[in-house]
Amino acid sequence: MSDSYQEIHQEAAIAAIATPIGEGGISVIRISGLNAISLTNKIFEGKDLTQKKAYTVHFGKLVDKNGQMIDEVLATIFRSPYSYTGEDTVEISCHGGVLITQAVLERILEVGAKAAEPGEFTRRAFLNGKLDLSQAEAVADLIHAKSGKAAKNAGKQLEGALGKHIQAFRQEIIDAAAMVELELDFIEEDVEFANKEQLVMLLKKVNAEIDKLLKTYESGRLVRDGVKSAFVGRPNAGKSTLLNALTGYDRAIVSAIAGTTRDTIDTEWSYEGIRFVLTDTAGLRETKDVIEAEGIKRSEKAIKEADIIVFLHDSTQVFTELERIEIAKYRALNSTVPFILVGTKRALLNEELAKAASSRIEFDLQVSAVENIGLDQLKGLLKQRAIEGKSLDDEGLLVTSTRHRDVLEKAKLHISQALEGLDKGMTGDFISIDLRAALNTLGTLTGQITTEDLLGSIFSRFCIGK
Amino acid sequence: MSDSYQEIHQEAAIAAIATPIGEGGISVIRISGLNAISLTNKIFEGKDLTQKKAYTVHFGKLVDKNGQMIDEVLATIFRSPYSYTGEDTVEISCHGGVLITQAVLERILEVGAKAAEPGEFTRRAFLNGKLDLSQAEAVADLIHAKSGKAAKNAGKQLEGALGKHIQAFRQEIIDAAAMVELELDFIEEDVEFANKEQLVMLLKKVNAEIDKLLKTYESGRLVRDGVKSAFVGRPNAGKSTLLNALTGYDRAIVSAIAGTTRDTIDTEWSYEGIRFVLTDTAGLRETKDVIEAEGIKRSEKAIKEADIIVFLHDSTQVFTELERIEIAKYRALNSTVPFILVGTKRALLNEELAKAASSRIEFDLQVSAVENIGLDQLKGLLKQRAIEGKSLDDEGLLVTSTRHRDVLEKAKLHISQALEGLDKGMTGDFISIDLRAALNTLGTLTGQITTEDLLGSIFSRFCIGK
Repeated sequence: MSDSYQEIHQEAAIAAIATPIGEGGISVIRISGLNAISLTNKIFEGKDLTQKKAYTVHFGKLVDKNGQMIDEVLATIFRSPYSYTGEDTVEISCHGGVLITQAVLERILEVGAKAAEPGEFTRRAFLNGKLDLSQAEAVADLIHAKSGKAAKNAGKQLEGALGKHIQAFRQEIIDAAAMVELELDFIEEDVEFANKEQLVMLLKKVNAEIDKLLKTYESGRLVRDGVKSAFVGRPNAGKSTLLNALTGYDRAIVSAIAGTTRDTIDTEWSYEGIRFVLTDTAGLRETKDVIEAEGIKRSEKAIKEADIIVFLHDSTQVFTELERIEIAKYRALNSTVPFILVGTKRALLNEELAKAASSRIEFDLQVSAVENIGLDQLKGLLKQRAIEGKSLDDEGLLVTSTRHRDVLEKAKLHISQALEGLDKGMTGDFISIDLRAALNTLGTLTGQITTEDLLGSIFSRFCIGK
Repeated sequence: MSDSYQEIHQEAAIAAIATPIGEGGISVIRISGLNAISLTNKIFEGKDLTQKKAYTVHFGKLVDKNGQMIDEVLATIFRSPYSYTGEDTVEISCHGGVLITQAVLERILEVGAKAAEPGEFTRRAFLNGKLDLSQAEAVADLIHAKSGKAAKNAGKQLEGALGKHIQAFRQEIIDAAAMVELELDFIEEDVEFANKEQLVMLLKKVNAEIDKLLKTYESGRLVRDGVKSAFVGRPNAGKSTLLNALTGYDRAIVSAIAGTTRDTIDTEWSYEGIRFVLTDTAGLRETKDVIEAEGIKRSEKAIKEADIIVFLHDSTQVFTELERIEIAKYRALNSTVPFILVGTKRALLNEELAKAASSRIEFDLQVSAVENIGLDQLKGLLKQRAIEGKSLDDEGLLVTSTRHRDVLEKAKLHISQALEGLDKGMTGDFISIDLRAALNTLGTLTGQITTEDLLGSIFSRFCIGK
């Protein structure tokens, strides 16, 4: 947060539960906006909160309309502009039950606060200049972060790392535009730009830098969302057992009945800093069972979206034509991602049979989940294939958001068009249009340029209470 | 909380996530004990927290051992004895992601705080005299409260209502014991108690009051835990569909295949202030399917523990001998609770057929979940049967805890023994032993008398972070 603020605009007070919903020691209800303090004071017994200084905490009873206690609470006072939103804010800390928290929220709504919409606190913070748009988005990423790398990257973005990059690009484009627009004053003379070469160099440099950021997106997506790994294979190939062994806990009922896993089940699993989302799929076999058919539809989706596909074959069984067809189907659905073929139940074969199996079938690996054979190799192989050609171990800032990627690509396109125009000897006013377009596009990333639609789509991704 | 404290004992600092685990706007990590403030200060960048006053809030960065930011946080300072635990306390409010919250906790543990055990903060609060034991238990009840009534009752207990009752009982027994022990000084004279009649009256009055509290237990249990309602019936009788219709959301996959509900599924549902736990059971039919067999074992348990049993019969089908046998089984497992026989799929019958069905079978009600026929009546019937003969609508304090019931029953027994002794003309020293036992027993309810075991079993019921 910066210490200098633009003029703060206080809107009508909004309220929401700011902590996760569930049972815990305490919950926090946040109230922000005009009258936030005086509204809370109406239902707070013990002290006059309106007389209290910013950054102070007060113990008291929150009471219902009959004066009966709802809960013993702590109220923290923030005064504009020194709060998350920039507005007057109260945070009520109550006992952490689902019901009691809800009761406190309902009470504050009863006396006049409005229920906050998803992201409305952060939206107000953005509109009051407390955060730029990329920082606001980092708040959501930080909250949803599923791995240390993802949290770290969101932290960098929250500190303003992405915003600074974008600001630098914009400054360079503004410089370029200034050169072009200066020339426009002399347009009748129809001269070549005196500084055309310098201009081309500058724009090429910006585009190269944008490109460098864009290249981090594929890694950024994996860091943020995890490596989607679809586990497929015939019923009874041992998918559930293997997934349990990999992740170390009982995720699904594992039984000796084929087709137990009727639905896709996602398990989150981190290995050496890389987050995987392992999907146990029902496979694509034909079925008349309506529940199973639904499962197969979901499997298809999981395979299409997978970053890696792992096919399990029961080594104690013959490799059937049916399996070959299935594998072909998987590859047809998603042909660009790594594919790993694993033989399961290795422990049930002696050395000779295992060799025979692997001579018939080109296994990447043979494993036994029960006897813990080959599991570490499988983990290593998953990681290796997942990060091949990607910079997941990079310490730099990663672009993780589709929106940011799209903005950067669009800006790059505008700059390329400007370069093309320069190459073709087009006049300054045409070049200038492209550069202004690039500037505006980049401005939407940090929020210097916004539309109601853009803000709506960004803040709807937030949870309520943030 | 009271304003006068016994001597506060500060133990080594403990830390835990105090808010529910999950994604939300913010999370709170609580640190309490010796050095809580200076430990936090080591990892907090921006201000010197050790110099800050109690009840103040400070914005800063929480940094890792390399000085890299983990998150932007707010730190609230509490100084002994004015905190929940009575010890020095810091509450760190960070962004509400699972991972980021965990990272903040790990960081504070890294610099020397100990991970708190379940209920350890409240245990310290109790040991420092900030709460009596029944109030401490009310904290857990408040957090776990599943209905407005349950929360309200826990609130009363937190305010000390139960403790005050117990204190009053103890005072009366102390008075009685004083009478008896005064007589002991004159024991050689072997006289009858001068005030025997008065003593008997006093003890009978205490026992009657204890009895009044005890009578609230059955209602208290239903208020706290909900009315356990087991829904049974043949596969395809429409259990899942009916439960969905009652509770208004899709709880289980509802399909046209018999036996879809392979496990018991609990749905929480509140109706007119009464909380129900609706259990969809697999039923008790014979099966060789191992998963289904497991489901049936759980069904049996659900029926044994039910407060009410609802049997569903598909009205479009013949009422089979198999169903009669099943109903007999359910009644054998749990014969004392209300039993409701419901005919389902009413909408598929015309008036005539419906009449014919209800002439053959003694339905309590015929319903259609799909066409919303009879659902309101079913809700009303569930409520009526559930609260028959119980005082769930009572505004008074309810005893909800098994421990409290056991303590009250034991105290009542001791007093009865004293009364019996008086009746038999036993000497004062015998009477005195019973009265002291009653006193000690009641003392364990509020915590004047405690053992390590008792505290252990009470606080282990808490969540970590409280």
